[in-house]
Amino acid sequence: MSRNRMVNDRVRWGVSVAIAALVSAGIGQAAPSLMPLPARMTPGSGRLAIDGNFHVALAGPSDEPRVHGAAMRLIDRLSAQTGIPLERALAKSAAAATLVVEWSDDGLPVQKLGEDESYELTVDGKQARLHAKTPLGAIWGMQTFLQLVETDGQGFAVNGVAIEDRPRFPWRGLLIDVSRHFMPLDVILRNIDGMSAVKLNVLHWHLSDDQGFRVESHRFPRLQEMGSDGMYYTQAQIRHVVEYARMRGIRVVPEFDMPGHSLSWLVGYPELATSPGPFEIGRHFGGFEALIDPTKDSTYQFIDSFLGEMSGLFPDEYFHIGGDEVNDKQWRENPQIQQFIQTNHLDGSRGLQAYFNKRVQPMLARYGKHVEGWDEILNPDLPRNIVIQSWRGQKSLAEAAKLGFQGILSSGYYLDLEYPAAKHYMVDPLENETAGLTAAEQELILGGEAAIWSEFVSPETIDSRTWPRLAAIAERLWSPADVKDVDSMYARMAVMSLRLDGLGLRHRSNYAEMLRRIAGPGPWEPVKVLADATEPSKGYSREEKHYVQQTPLNRLVDAARPESGQAREFAALVKKVLANRNDAEMTELRKRMEEWKDNDAKLDPVMKASFLAQDNAALSKQLAEVAGIGLEALRAIETRKGRTAAWVKEKTEALEAMKKKRAEMMVPEIAAVEEMVEASAAPAKAPAKGKRKKS
Amino acid sequence: MSRNRMVNDRVRWGVSVAIAALVSAGIGQAAPSLMPLPARMTPGSGRLAIDGNFHVALAGPSDEPRVHGAAMRLIDRLSAQTGIPLERALAKSAAAATLVVEWSDDGLPVQKLGEDESYELTVDGKQARLHAKTPLGAIWGMQTFLQLVETDGQGFAVNGVAIEDRPRFPWRGLLIDVSRHFMPLDVILRNIDGMSAVKLNVLHWHLSDDQGFRVESHRFPRLQEMGSDGMYYTQAQIRHVVEYARMRGIRVVPEFDMPGHSLSWLVGYPELATSPGPFEIGRHFGGFEALIDPTKDSTYQFIDSFLGEMSGLFPDEYFHIGGDEVNDKQWRENPQIQQFIQTNHLDGSRGLQAYFNKRVQPMLARYGKHVEGWDEILNPDLPRNIVIQSWRGQKSLAEAAKLGFQGILSSGYYLDLEYPAAKHYMVDPLENETAGLTAAEQELILGGEAAIWSEFVSPETIDSRTWPRLAAIAERLWSPADVKDVDSMYARMAVMSLRLDGLGLRHRSNYAEMLRRIAGPGPWEPVKVLADATEPSKGYSREEKHYVQQTPLNRLVDAARPESGQAREFAALVKKVLANRNDAEMTELRKRMEEWKDNDAKLDPVMKASFLAQDNAALSKQLAEVAGIGLEALRAIETRKGRTAAWVKEKTEALEAMKKKRAEMMVPEIAAVEEMVEASAAPAKAPAKGKRKKS
Repeated sequence: MSRNRMVNDRVRWGVSVAIAALVSAGIGQAAPSLMPLPARMTPGSGRLAIDGNFHVALAGPSDEPRVHGAAMRLIDRLSAQTGIPLERALAKSAAAATLVVEWSDDGLPVQKLGEDESYELTVDGKQARLHAKTPLGAIWGMQTFLQLVETDGQGFAVNGVAIEDRPRFPWRGLLIDVSRHFMPLDVILRNIDGMSAVKLNVLHWHLSDDQGFRVESHRFPRLQEMGSDGMYYTQAQIRHVVEYARMRGIRVVPEFDMPGHSLSWLVGYPELATSPGPFEIGRHFGGFEALIDPTKDSTYQFIDSFLGEMSGLFPDEYFHIGGDEVNDKQWRENPQIQQFIQTNHLDGSRGLQAYFNKRVQPMLARYGKHVEGWDEILNPDLPRNIVIQSWRGQKSLAEAAKLGFQGILSSGYYLDLEYPAAKHYMVDPLENETAGLTAAEQELILGGEAAIWSEFVSPETIDSRTWPRLAAIAERLWSPADVKDVDSMYARMAVMSLRLDGLGLRHRSNYAEMLRRIAGPGPWEPVKVLADATEPSKGYSREEKHYVQQTPLNRLVDAARPESGQAREFAALVKKVLANRNDAEMTELRKRMEEWKDNDAKLDPVMKASFLAQDNAALSKQLAEVAGIGLEALRAIETRKGRTAAWVKEKTEALEAMKKKRAEMMVPEIAAVEEMVEASAAPAKAPAKGKRKKS
Repeated sequence: MSRNRMVNDRVRWGVSVAIAALVSAGIGQAAPSLMPLPARMTPGSGRLAIDGNFHVALAGPSDEPRVHGAAMRLIDRLSAQTGIPLERALAKSAAAATLVVEWSDDGLPVQKLGEDESYELTVDGKQARLHAKTPLGAIWGMQTFLQLVETDGQGFAVNGVAIEDRPRFPWRGLLIDVSRHFMPLDVILRNIDGMSAVKLNVLHWHLSDDQGFRVESHRFPRLQEMGSDGMYYTQAQIRHVVEYARMRGIRVVPEFDMPGHSLSWLVGYPELATSPGPFEIGRHFGGFEALIDPTKDSTYQFIDSFLGEMSGLFPDEYFHIGGDEVNDKQWRENPQIQQFIQTNHLDGSRGLQAYFNKRVQPMLARYGKHVEGWDEILNPDLPRNIVIQSWRGQKSLAEAAKLGFQGILSSGYYLDLEYPAAKHYMVDPLENETAGLTAAEQELILGGEAAIWSEFVSPETIDSRTWPRLAAIAERLWSPADVKDVDSMYARMAVMSLRLDGLGLRHRSNYAEMLRRIAGPGPWEPVKVLADATEPSKGYSREEKHYVQQTPLNRLVDAARPESGQAREFAALVKKVLANRNDAEMTELRKRMEEWKDNDAKLDPVMKASFLAQDNAALSKQLAEVAGIGLEALRAIETRKGRTAAWVKEKTEALEAMKKKRAEMMVPEIAAVEEMVEASAAPAKAPAKGKRKKS
C-alpha cells in the first residue's frame, strides 16, 4: 500500500531545481557534499554554529533505543569530525537543543521491508529540526545532518537549508561473502557503519558456500566444526551483528546457499550429498560438483531442523536460500536421482531444483519467512511473496515481475570485479527490460544489492575493494533517478571516502601499509607511483587457477585501488590539453608522464630486494612505455610538428598490445595516451604554419 | 635476591660486539630493526622462511594462558605483517613448528616486580627456539621474534641469529593521565599493545586528579557520579584492562592522588575537604587550593574503606597515593589545622602530609600493598618497602636510595612536554647524583616511567604525543646502558613507528585527518607543508590560561608532531652542505627552503576559508622568513660570495627574534639556518680566490 504511493511519487519527486543548480554551478565548496543526494533540497538562510554547546533533543513517543543510539553516535561523530569535546547527554529541553529530532511512531521491533524511511530536515540560524515518521527516517536524517556540517572562516556550521528526503527504492543492500574468505567480526561491524553512513538498509550475509560454513549451529555442530577451519560466527556474535545493524537502520538477511555451492555442509554431514563422501572443504574457486541430494526425505528433515534453528537467529522476514549455479552433473549421472525425476514427472534437473525449492519454501513459511533466491529459483509454481535477486540482469527481473515476483538487481553491482564507480553508478534497476514494465510491475522491483564476493578479497583488502565505490551504488538506489552527474558523484565520493575512513573503514589507511610491505626493505615511493597510476584488471580476469583459499592476497593487485584517481585526473587533463593547448597544463601533463617514465628505474632495486614487488617488472615497464609514447606525442602537440601516419600507426598498435594485463594489473592511462597519439598526427595533415611561427 | 644478580650482571652484560658492529656499519637494511636492542645478539647462519606453513609449538609446564595468548597474537601479527593467512592453531609437534616457545616456570598469578623477564632466542635455517624462565620472558621473546621478520628477494624470513636478552631495569612504565582528559577504554587498550611491543611492563594509571575522578566506586558512588561528568571506567572495565595488560606482561599500578590534586573527590564528598564546600570539578589546569583534611578521623575511615575497595580491584603489589604538589594554603590559614599540627608536634604542613602518609600506609599494608608516591612523600619514618617516583630528578632518587628507599625516575621522561626523542633517550636513571651511589644503593633504583599528562592531550592526540618517542625511553630502560647511538635509535624508531601504527595506534593515521580538518574546505597540502616543518613549542610553554578542560584540541599545535622529522633531516642536510658543498645536496636544500618560502602564499586562502587554520598566519610567515634567510645564505655559500658582517649580524638577530613561539608553535629549522648564516660570512674574511675561479 505504501509502496504504491512510493512508485507514484517517483514521478513527483526528483532532484529539485535548487540542488541541481548548486551542483552544476560547481560551487562545490559552498554546496555540502551530501551522498546520497536527497530527493529535494532548498537552500535556506542563516548559519547554525556547531560548537561546544551542541546538544540534541529527542521528541518521540518513547525513549526509542535506535533513535537514542543514533543521537549518541551523532554526538561522537560530530566530536570526531570537529575535535570539539561534546557532552554525551541529551538537551534539557527542545528549546535548548541545537538539533531537535522528532518522530511520530516507534516503528516495528523487527525492521520491515518498505517501512517508512522518509524525513524532513530544516536548518536555520537558530536550530536544526528533523521530523521523521519512524526511527529509520530519524537515523537517516541524522546521517544527513552530519554531512551538512562544514568549516568556514568563523567556525563549524550548518548553513540554512530545507531537505525533504526519502529513498527511491526500499531495498538497498550489500552482499558480503564470508565463505571464500572469512571476515572477522570487526570487519562486518565497520562495514555496517559504512553502509549506514550512505543509507543502505540491507546486509545480505552470504554465510555458506563450498569454501566455508560460517555460522555456529547447535543442532548440527559439525557444520561449523568441520566446515569452517574454526572460522565462524558464534550465535552470540550473530545476535550482536543483527542488533548492531538494527540500531543503524539495517536489516540482516542471511544466505545459506543450497542445493549447490554447499560442499562445506557435506564435510560434516556427507549423508546430505548426492554422491558418496568423504568430502573436504573447497579450496579453489572454480565450481564444485558435490551438491545436496533433493530426493531423500532425510535431507528435508535436516534442512527443516536447520532452518528452524537459523530462523530463530535471524529475525528478518526474508531468508535467502541461494539456488544459483547448480552443477547438475551428479544428478544427471545418478540413476536413482534420474528415477526420482521420472517418477515425479519433473522437468529434469531444473525441475528437480524447483521441487527442492517447493519443499523448502513451506518450511520457511512455517517459520514466518519469505524466501529469497537467485535468478535460478524462479518458477511459476512458487508463491508470489518470494524475492528474486538477479545476478543476470534486468531481463530476469522483468520476467519475474511479469509473473508477479518481487526482484532486486545485483547484476552490474559486483564490486569485486573492480570496475570504476561510474560504471556501477549508471546501472539502474529500472532500465532496459524493466523500463518497459507497467507501473504495477515496476513496483515489484524493490531495489538492488551491491556484492563483494571474496574469492580474491581478504579481511585486509575488503574495505578497499568495497569503498568508496559502494557509496555511488548507494546513491543510485536512494536518490531520484535523474541524479546522474558523474563528475558531481566523483567529487562528493572523494569527500565521502574521507568520512568513511574516519568511521573506521580501512580502505584508505591500509593502502600505505600494503605498499610498504610490498616494498620490503627498500623505499616504498616507487611502488606507490606505480600503484597510484595502475589498476587491477577488470571483471573475471584474475587467473583463478593460481589461487586457493590460502594464497596470500598481498601483491600489488591487492593493494592497488580498483579505480585509479590519478588515471581519471590524467584523462581529464589530456582532454583539456587537446582542447586548449595551454602551456601550464602541458607542463603539468609532461611532469606526470616523466614521473611514470622515470619510475621504472627507481623500482628496479626495490624489486630486487623484495619478492613481493618482483612480479611488477612488466607492469612498470608498460607504464614507462605508455608514458614514453605520451611524451613523444605531447612533444609533437607542443611543437605542432605533426607525427607521420606511420608513427601514429606504430604507436597505436604498441599501445593496443599494452592493454594486455601484467601481474593481474593494467595501465588505465592507455586510452588517454591513444587520444594524444591521434591528436599528434592531425596538424601534419594541414600544418598551420602561421601559428607555428608565433610559438 | 634475584635483583642482586641483575645489578651485578649490568657489568657483565652489555651490547655485544656483534650488534654494535652491525649498527655502526650502517648496514641498516641487513640488521633487523630491533627496539629495544637486546642485551646480546650474535649473527648466526641460515635463513628461516616464514610462509603459510608457519606454526608455533608451546612447551611449558602447563597451557599457560599468557603464553598461549601471546602465541595467538604473534600469529595474528605475523599474518598482518606479511599478508599471509595463517592458521590460528598450535603445531602438532615441536619438530613441526617454525617457532618453539619453551618456558620452565608458569610464573606468579599476579605479575611481580623483579620477576624474571629474560629469554634466549636462537634462529637457524630450520627453526626458531625461544627459551624463557617465565611467561614474561616468553612474551618478550615473541615480540623480538616479530621484529626479526624481514622481506628479501625470496620471501619473508628470519636470518640466523642468537639473542640473549634481559632488561636492565625491572620497572619500565608509562603513566597515563586520564583525569585532565578522560581516555576511553580503546585508547588504553591500544596503548597497552604498544607498550608491550617495546617491552614496557608497568601501566601507571593516573586515575584521579582535580579535573576528574575516573573509577567506579561502589562504596562511594558520588566519587564517579559527581566527579567525572559521566566519564569513568566501570569496575568491569578496570578488571578487563588489568587482565588485558597481564596477558601482555604488564602490571597495572593505580594512582589516586591525595591529599592534594583531589578536588574531584570533594564534589561528591565535601566532608573530606579542608575548607567548606560545595565544590565543582576543576576545569582549568593551574593548581587548586582545595585539599583533603588530614586532621579528621572521618577522613581516614573514608580512605581506609575506599582503599580496601580499590585494593580488590587492582591486584598489583604497588599502590600509588600521589602526594605531589600539595598547596598548603588552606592548611596554613585554618586555625583548627594549625592547632592539630601544634598538638601533634608536626613539622608544619610538610609534617602534616607525612602524618597523613603514615596513617594511610598501614591501611595499604593491611590490604597487601606497598605504597608508591611522588618525591614529596619521602620521609625517613616510613617503612622501606615504598617506592619514590621522582618528577624532580636523580637527586631526589639518590637521597631516597641513601635512606634505603626504592625509586623510579620520571623526570626527563614527560612526553607531553614534546621534547625530541633524543633528549629523553639520553636521560638515564643511573647518572648524575645516582651515578655516585653504591652498588647496593643503585640496586634500589628500579627503573623509570614515561608520563603523558593530559592537560593538553585528548583521546585523539594522545597517541601522537606518546608515540613513537616512547619507544626511545623503553629502549633506555631495557637495553644496556651503553646503547646510546642516537642515529641508530632514530633509524630503528622510524621502523618501529610503522609497526606500532599497524598494531592499531593512531599516531600516524590521524595526522592527515587532523590536518584536513584544519584546512576545512580548502586544499590541505599547504597546512601539511607547514605542519611537517614545524613543532609545538617545548616544555611548560603552552598558555594555560587560554585552556579549560572543554577547549577543543584541534589546532595545528595539536596535530603537528612533537618532533619534526623534516627538521631533523634538514639539519643533517645543512651539516652535509657546509662540510661538502656538494651540488646535489645544495640543490636539495634549496628545493626544501623554496617550498617553505612559497608555502605562505598558498596557505593564505586556506586560512581565509577555515577558522582552524587562521591562527597560523604568523607561524607560516616565520617559516617563510627563515627559509628566505636560509636561501640568501645558501646563495652566498654556493657562489662563495661572502656576506658582510653587518648582514650576518642582522640576520642572526632576526632569526633569534623568530625563536619566539607563534600559536604555541616554533620553527625548529632556525638553528640550522643560523649555522648557514654564520658559514655564509666565513669566506668573506679570507676569500679563497683560487677556489672561486675554479667553480
